[in-house]
Amino acid sequence: MASLDLTADIVTLTRAVVDVPSESLEEAELADAVEAALRTCDHLQVVRDGHTIIARTELGRDERVVIAGHIDTVPLNDNLPSRLEGDTLWGLGTCDMKGGVAIALSLAAELSEPVRDVTWVFYEAEEIAAVHNGLGRIAREHPEWLQGDFAILMEPSNAGVEAGCQGTMRVEIRTTGERAHSARSWMGHNAIHDLAPVLATLAGYSPRTVDIDGLTYREGLNAVGVRGGVSGNVIPDEAVLTVNYRFAPDRDEEAALAHLREVFSGHELTVTDSAPGALPGLGRPAAAAFVEAIGGEVGPKFGWTDVAKFTLLGVPAVNYGPGDPRYAHKADEQVPVEHLHRVHDRLREWLSGH
Amino acid sequence: MASLDLTADIVTLTRAVVDVPSESLEEAELADAVEAALRTCDHLQVVRDGHTIIARTELGRDERVVIAGHIDTVPLNDNLPSRLEGDTLWGLGTCDMKGGVAIALSLAAELSEPVRDVTWVFYEAEEIAAVHNGLGRIAREHPEWLQGDFAILMEPSNAGVEAGCQGTMRVEIRTTGERAHSARSWMGHNAIHDLAPVLATLAGYSPRTVDIDGLTYREGLNAVGVRGGVSGNVIPDEAVLTVNYRFAPDRDEEAALAHLREVFSGHELTVTDSAPGALPGLGRPAAAAFVEAIGGEVGPKFGWTDVAKFTLLGVPAVNYGPGDPRYAHKADEQVPVEHLHRVHDRLREWLSGH
Repeated sequence: MASLDLTADIVTLTRAVVDVPSESLEEAELADAVEAALRTCDHLQVVRDGHTIIARTELGRDERVVIAGHIDTVPLNDNLPSRLEGDTLWGLGTCDMKGGVAIALSLAAELSEPVRDVTWVFYEAEEIAAVHNGLGRIAREHPEWLQGDFAILMEPSNAGVEAGCQGTMRVEIRTTGERAHSARSWMGHNAIHDLAPVLATLAGYSPRTVDIDGLTYREGLNAVGVRGGVSGNVIPDEAVLTVNYRFAPDRDEEAALAHLREVFSGHELTVTDSAPGALPGLGRPAAAAFVEAIGGEVGPKFGWTDVAKFTLLGVPAVNYGPGDPRYAHKADEQVPVEHLHRVHDRLREWLSGH
Repeated sequence: MASLDLTADIVTLTRAVVDVPSESLEEAELADAVEAALRTCDHLQVVRDGHTIIARTELGRDERVVIAGHIDTVPLNDNLPSRLEGDTLWGLGTCDMKGGVAIALSLAAELSEPVRDVTWVFYEAEEIAAVHNGLGRIAREHPEWLQGDFAILMEPSNAGVEAGCQGTMRVEIRTTGERAHSARSWMGHNAIHDLAPVLATLAGYSPRTVDIDGLTYREGLNAVGVRGGVSGNVIPDEAVLTVNYRFAPDRDEEAALAHLREVFSGHELTVTDSAPGALPGLGRPAAAAFVEAIGGEVGPKFGWTDVAKFTLLGVPAVNYGPGDPRYAHKADEQVPVEHLHRVHDRLREWLSGH
């Protein structure tokens, strides 16, 4: 069984976490190691649910912050074990998001008396279908475990604060026709041709940009898949276009769908996937204080992340973690060593009060 | 080994031919039976090339007619052995085109002194990729075997004469973009959206109708397939639309492609499949005499058939055979018994002179 030395320097600890493979649904070994290491800390109350581990300080502080990271990764892509080259640490999970997990583990062990109570959350199965997501399960079954004044999700954000997140909705637009031999096409009705006005709408669509709390969110409406055709000599009787709408967090899912129904009026829409956005909530005192303490510019989060789960629980949340998200899920996944040190230092300062 | 009694009545002989399975590339048993039966006829000169058998009369007549049929079928679809129910014969190949093959075999054996010399052609592998086609191979390697004043292809044509055939061309129209995460779609370029003007062109296209030799050919230009998309959260960098153009035989393949380039100007076209049409040639004396003798209305052939191979050899050709082509390649494949008798009788009359 793997074991983790939480007192090691942050690069060494990150490598140790990275080098325990933990593809989604295969997090048992890493979860065991995380649990065992945290249980050695007398200042933490540790609970485990599945492969999700939660460790809390109970110091009676005025404020509680929830700091969360997922311990699973996408599948191996010939990019383990980790490799340190100069200023860069390479390997599966270095960016998404074992760098953030290692920082959280390090500070959970080190800070026995933080100025804010902390709920450390290490959860499973973020990279696969939502039904498996450990944070989602806790939010449904034990929402009280996630309560706090503020939450930080340590997804890669280039070591800067990214606030809120955009929502995402996928719909299928299906056209139906009538089959015929293509040598006698007038006896049928071509479903692919019926996509013409839908694609024209998409090509001519102007997405919104929305200012919220001083951040500018940019929406997007895009075809992400199209399929149709029976064989090379048959007029197709069905075509399906999959459209992905990324919407600013001033719209909820209902408003997003209403917008799509208006844009594609006259067409049948089937929602295949949907997740709400999260408002940045930077006006809340806890969030404002965090941003103030961390310093630097705050940006909007365009991609969807689990911060939305905290928003649904009424907890303002931001993304803050090491790594450039463009390297997530890539064979050349990597994290700058400087990010690991910077995020580690800044979080320690904010939590320890000096 | 199967054997065929060519003196049996036409329904019995058709059933016998149908009941020797001969899916494309597996024609050996049926080809052997056809060859053996024809070799018993002293008035025929028989040659075999692969599983293609050619039997000729050599009576020194003024005119030679080539009568051809393919002996292969599409794969079994739980529709053998043959089944006679009332006025209908059911089973794989009854329509496409063992009814026609049986009529040709019957007349080849019976008519020892036809008023026109006849070249009977029973060929393999029409239902699969063109490279296997027995008639195509003979046309390339022994074109003199197919020479004649007129040719009849016994493909199903509802026991009426269908003249010429339309050409067919398939092209792929490919659009290219640039991948990006769909949460940051402005960093990419959506290839599916770029199909919008292509589909608009197709949806608004008015196909030609063309009169040739008193027949009206109807063209068609249709999308028969579309594909694109990387995953649900990626802006797609490629989309491919497959378009099938069925063109009247006044256009050759070059003219057809030039037309497509004009219609889709500005887009890259890749020809994936092409076959020329065949002019009806009803002005030629042999063809006119045949139509006159057979009687009934002549229609245009919209689908592509091997008559085009005769056209390329300079031999006017028509489609004339029992069966409704709509039942070809169907599980409920069938031929009306009346078609078998009618085509059998008419051809006998025309070839025997009474």
